[in-house]
Amino acid sequence: MERTLIKDLKGKVGEEVLIKGCVDVRRDHGKLIFIDLRDRSGKVQMVALPNHKEAHEVASKLRSEWVVAVTGKVNARPEKMVKKDEQNGDVEIEMLSLQILGQAKEIPFELNTETNIDTYLDNLPFTLRSEKSRAIFKVQAQIGKAFREFFTSNDFTEFQAPKLIGDDAEGGANSFDVTYFKHTAHLAQSPQLYKQIMVGIFERVFAMGNVYRAEKHSTTRHLNEYTSLDIEMGFIKDHTDVMAIENGFLKHLEQTLRANMKNEFKLLKADIPKVPDEIPRMKLREAQALITKETGKDCTHEPDLEPEHERWLCTYAKEKLDSDFIFITHFPTAKRPFYTYRDEKDPTYTKGFDLLFRGVEITTGAQRIHDHEALIASIKEKGLDPERFSYYLQAFKVGLPPHGGFGLGLERLTQKMLGLDNVKEATLFPRDLNRIDKLLTAEVKKD
Amino acid sequence: MERTLIKDLKGKVGEEVLIKGCVDVRRDHGKLIFIDLRDRSGKVQMVALPNHKEAHEVASKLRSEWVVAVTGKVNARPEKMVKKDEQNGDVEIEMLSLQILGQAKEIPFELNTETNIDTYLDNLPFTLRSEKSRAIFKVQAQIGKAFREFFTSNDFTEFQAPKLIGDDAEGGANSFDVTYFKHTAHLAQSPQLYKQIMVGIFERVFAMGNVYRAEKHSTTRHLNEYTSLDIEMGFIKDHTDVMAIENGFLKHLEQTLRANMKNEFKLLKADIPKVPDEIPRMKLREAQALITKETGKDCTHEPDLEPEHERWLCTYAKEKLDSDFIFITHFPTAKRPFYTYRDEKDPTYTKGFDLLFRGVEITTGAQRIHDHEALIASIKEKGLDPERFSYYLQAFKVGLPPHGGFGLGLERLTQKMLGLDNVKEATLFPRDLNRIDKLLTAEVKKD
Repeated sequence: MERTLIKDLKGKVGEEVLIKGCVDVRRDHGKLIFIDLRDRSGKVQMVALPNHKEAHEVASKLRSEWVVAVTGKVNARPEKMVKKDEQNGDVEIEMLSLQILGQAKEIPFELNTETNIDTYLDNLPFTLRSEKSRAIFKVQAQIGKAFREFFTSNDFTEFQAPKLIGDDAEGGANSFDVTYFKHTAHLAQSPQLYKQIMVGIFERVFAMGNVYRAEKHSTTRHLNEYTSLDIEMGFIKDHTDVMAIENGFLKHLEQTLRANMKNEFKLLKADIPKVPDEIPRMKLREAQALITKETGKDCTHEPDLEPEHERWLCTYAKEKLDSDFIFITHFPTAKRPFYTYRDEKDPTYTKGFDLLFRGVEITTGAQRIHDHEALIASIKEKGLDPERFSYYLQAFKVGLPPHGGFGLGLERLTQKMLGLDNVKEATLFPRDLNRIDKLLTAEVKKD
Repeated sequence: MERTLIKDLKGKVGEEVLIKGCVDVRRDHGKLIFIDLRDRSGKVQMVALPNHKEAHEVASKLRSEWVVAVTGKVNARPEKMVKKDEQNGDVEIEMLSLQILGQAKEIPFELNTETNIDTYLDNLPFTLRSEKSRAIFKVQAQIGKAFREFFTSNDFTEFQAPKLIGDDAEGGANSFDVTYFKHTAHLAQSPQLYKQIMVGIFERVFAMGNVYRAEKHSTTRHLNEYTSLDIEMGFIKDHTDVMAIENGFLKHLEQTLRANMKNEFKLLKADIPKVPDEIPRMKLREAQALITKETGKDCTHEPDLEPEHERWLCTYAKEKLDSDFIFITHFPTAKRPFYTYRDEKDPTYTKGFDLLFRGVEITTGAQRIHDHEALIASIKEKGLDPERFSYYLQAFKVGLPPHGGFGLGLERLTQKMLGLDNVKEATLFPRDLNRIDKLLTAEVKKD
């Protein structure tokens, strides 16, 4: 018999079906044994009756997470047993025969139990099976899909950015060292230099892949390995073209989530954010003046936004401008990387932006310097040696159009979309200062 | 005026348009200056006439790769100048005004020049702009897209596999070390263990991302960083279910390439392979018996296929079985990783396969061991310590269905699809024993 997916049971009352899945819960009611079985498509209640002796005997051995193939008859539930709001709440499967495909030796605790974050992370191969985690990573897969769909349909070409790099592009000390035969290589902190090179090839490009930050934090918002959604586009007027296309992407994302992820958001008690046609925007200095005026604390001379200011601006945008998102533009040149384009009207500020969403920055983007000489001057001004960037500089030496782009952290976006406390809940296998799976804790124990 | 893309010039004869792009070639014919301009969508010929003095003056300064915005009039070419087989071969743009957006300081040589591979790689930010390279990486982007489309539509969920790992999963010495704060971590050679864990979460999963092999080769078929297309699926009967879904994917890929990439294949003088409804298959021992019989050289006791045998089998499959692809199954247990399922009929052979295509192996796949105890026994048999795999083993301890999957190297597939000599031609920024961009050569010079 062909396997039937649990989501396809509708309209099959009276039929015999083959269902494969794993045991969510077993409940014994006297001689009746109830099994909630789940597969990739959903859940259904099954019952073993004493008159089907063999099936009943096998069912009595089952435990949570055991994997089975069940042949059974789809019965309508008696009226008073119907659960209207549940998937398959109007049917029940009478088990006729049962085959055990996989056994669970032991489970560490009941699935869907609330645990502290360390217990959750130590047991990911199990805890990721919870309803909540599955919903989170279904949403994450949708975000990635929506990203690629939107940019592909806007004529962007996907490219594979290398992660093993020779030099630390951002000039910081935050890159991991890799022993590369007789040399030292690094893990890329972003595909920045490569995506700019790619503008010369395809004009509009996107990439999706891991990036690395050797930050010595273990907080609810930092990760040492995360997934970056990156775009870069040529022939822009200025950074506002980049903001406009990010705005467009977010609108597409909203539609995609509304169409496909309503149940997941409901389960996680989260709201799909409404994305305005034009996300509100403010220059950094305007934002700081506003914060100073409203809170009485002067921040007008700070070179960047503090976390508390990001939160304040998000609350303001939500309450006064009816938006979960707000762009902050024109950060000081001194605080931005060497490749950032400077405002012609005042070159101490950049044509760049951050996008804030529900209290945190989720994107940094900008127009980039595209003139070879201006770029070399900017590299030198940051105290860096242009020779270190000679490979990248080739792209400018042979000519590049005005261009810009942005990067967006997939896990942080997932976290904030779903209102999760910790970005690690939105990361399948998070790596931080103290954790690679259980390796580091294991190593520490050995020491 | 809104920008018009070069591919959209059809039917605009007589209209004024704004075109942005970069100079492919400039040709001076007396007072007439011809410019072939390219943008992301194609190429068009432009002409500067002496009577448009300003445009003519600017045009006379242009060099290859300079970036411009041109306002011009779309004219039909005189009948005898029409080039029927060329994009926009029936029109020409009369330049009315010209704005320089970006200059090339110098180009190392004419674009589209044939160079040796080292010169090509040393100048990638420039050489990738050639028609040939652009076609290669357009095809590569399509392969990735087709992969995700096919598996998404077959109910697979995408996941982000970590690349920073604690232990070397395959037990070999081929992993790169990463200095991870006070510890040593590694770069993943595959997402193998994580995709098996994910079968417990979503039943069917796929991932696309970089993997790393610290192989000390610099050959035409090896890369130290490449992109792996990975799937894993639960509730399989055996490895043939995995082969069937890979077959299905390849058929979908063929259709996608035929629909969208005909011009690119034509330009590269390559044939889109016809994928049979059922790719021919042979057990390793059968294949070896055949080779021995046909070539007279006995290879029936070898534990694996030599490169020359892979080539022989591909030629055989093409000539005798009318297929560019052939599956070889049942490799010896001793030569396969610990997680590979053994054939019940003869446990010294595995329920696994390689897929050969145009002379090389492009996929390794298999059913996996899903029973916790059997897996521990297999780990021990390989001389490995199960304790090292305790994180991964959790997934089996809490129960997993019978499952299997495969991995497919994106660059090698691209190379073989397009008949390229060297896999590095199908890798945007290849890393090998001697090369990370130009870093390693630069370091060597410094020594």
